[in-house]
Amino acid sequence: MPPLIISLVGKPDSGKTTLLESLLPELHLRGYRIGTVKHHVHQFEMDREGKDTWRHKQAGAWTVALSSPTGLGIIRDVGHDHAVEELLDRYFYDVDLVIAEGYKSTDLPKIELFRRSAHATPLPNRDETWIAFISDTTISTDLPCFALTDVPGIADFIIDRFITKAGPARATLLVDGKTIPLNSFVESFLSKAVLGMTTSLKGCEEAGEITITIRPERKDATI
Amino acid sequence: MPPLIISLVGKPDSGKTTLLESLLPELHLRGYRIGTVKHHVHQFEMDREGKDTWRHKQAGAWTVALSSPTGLGIIRDVGHDHAVEELLDRYFYDVDLVIAEGYKSTDLPKIELFRRSAHATPLPNRDETWIAFISDTTISTDLPCFALTDVPGIADFIIDRFITKAGPARATLLVDGKTIPLNSFVESFLSKAVLGMTTSLKGCEEAGEITITIRPERKDATI
Repeated sequence: MPPLIISLVGKPDSGKTTLLESLLPELHLRGYRIGTVKHHVHQFEMDREGKDTWRHKQAGAWTVALSSPTGLGIIRDVGHDHAVEELLDRYFYDVDLVIAEGYKSTDLPKIELFRRSAHATPLPNRDETWIAFISDTTISTDLPCFALTDVPGIADFIIDRFITKAGPARATLLVDGKTIPLNSFVESFLSKAVLGMTTSLKGCEEAGEITITIRPERKDATI
Repeated sequence: MPPLIISLVGKPDSGKTTLLESLLPELHLRGYRIGTVKHHVHQFEMDREGKDTWRHKQAGAWTVALSSPTGLGIIRDVGHDHAVEELLDRYFYDVDLVIAEGYKSTDLPKIELFRRSAHATPLPNRDETWIAFISDTTISTDLPCFALTDVPGIADFIIDRFITKAGPARATLLVDGKTIPLNSFVESFLSKAVLGMTTSLKGCEEAGEITITIRPERKDATI
């Protein structure tokens, strides 16, 4: 099972990134690996101008990787705007939780950051995907509300709700980049079949994570 | 089968990145998707200081993604220095060829760039992994030699040798992040078993690329 995802939402300049700068170290100190994802509507900029990898990308490379003993950077073209869920299996396979910044028009569980010192009201269109508030004031809601300064309390809530209860990880299936929902029978059948085939192979007797990819015969390359 | 990899080697300042700035557009124009990879021994820098994703990473996120309709950037921690081969299945699964810049102490097939105007001699320790030279002078070798300006000729050579002949793609197996070599019987058996199981599922009848990941039950998180 891939990690769960929550979304931290709020109006522009409500302080989402600043809050993450306190929350991420708190979760890290407690031993969890957290992934984050941010959506960018317009021009995409991540690498540093003039670096070799930047020059590769500018020259038309589809995927560029910078690899070091401690980190890895990948910058690549994509054919469509990805939902966070589509990124989980390939890029967030080894984290405990993904926190999306923004992504308010999705079904992801949402924690809203509302600073009265920045805005008069919280986001409009609150729906059943809202699970909590973080604020510098009191909010009229039945949902849990955390003070902006209560980073340990926010971390407790997230861990209790989205990490501790994630349960055992089993099989995931991606077909042409999309996650296929599996019922428990199919998930169990796939897990056991793949485990059975793989652990029979030399050197794979003690396999932990197993990934099999099947690709069709390559057709003429198209961009 | 993942894409093949070649390595462009040469002494520092021989002009490897500059050559790629001509070669990548040439390969792109011919309809191929090329991946590139660069190794970094020391401190890892890719994102732009002050950006939200940079702030997430500084605050201790394990993996950070920036997602847009046309591009995707991933910056993540890793536990060890990756060989290029380890990056193929996860990050270069949809390119036709990977060109590594550097990586001269590996078994990758190597094309050496030697500019007489920059250095007196080519790299020492040339071995049987060298397959061609690109130079502004004549070199005493039986290997193919291309003029620095003959970008179409270099592209022809690479396509003929490493893309056109790549052949049909089939199954790859990763166990705990390492590619397990498969003989043709096992590869065919795995392909057919996975195709058979998957294409029986609703919505997967026309599956192209299939990826199944099996993970063991998650233990206590460790960093």
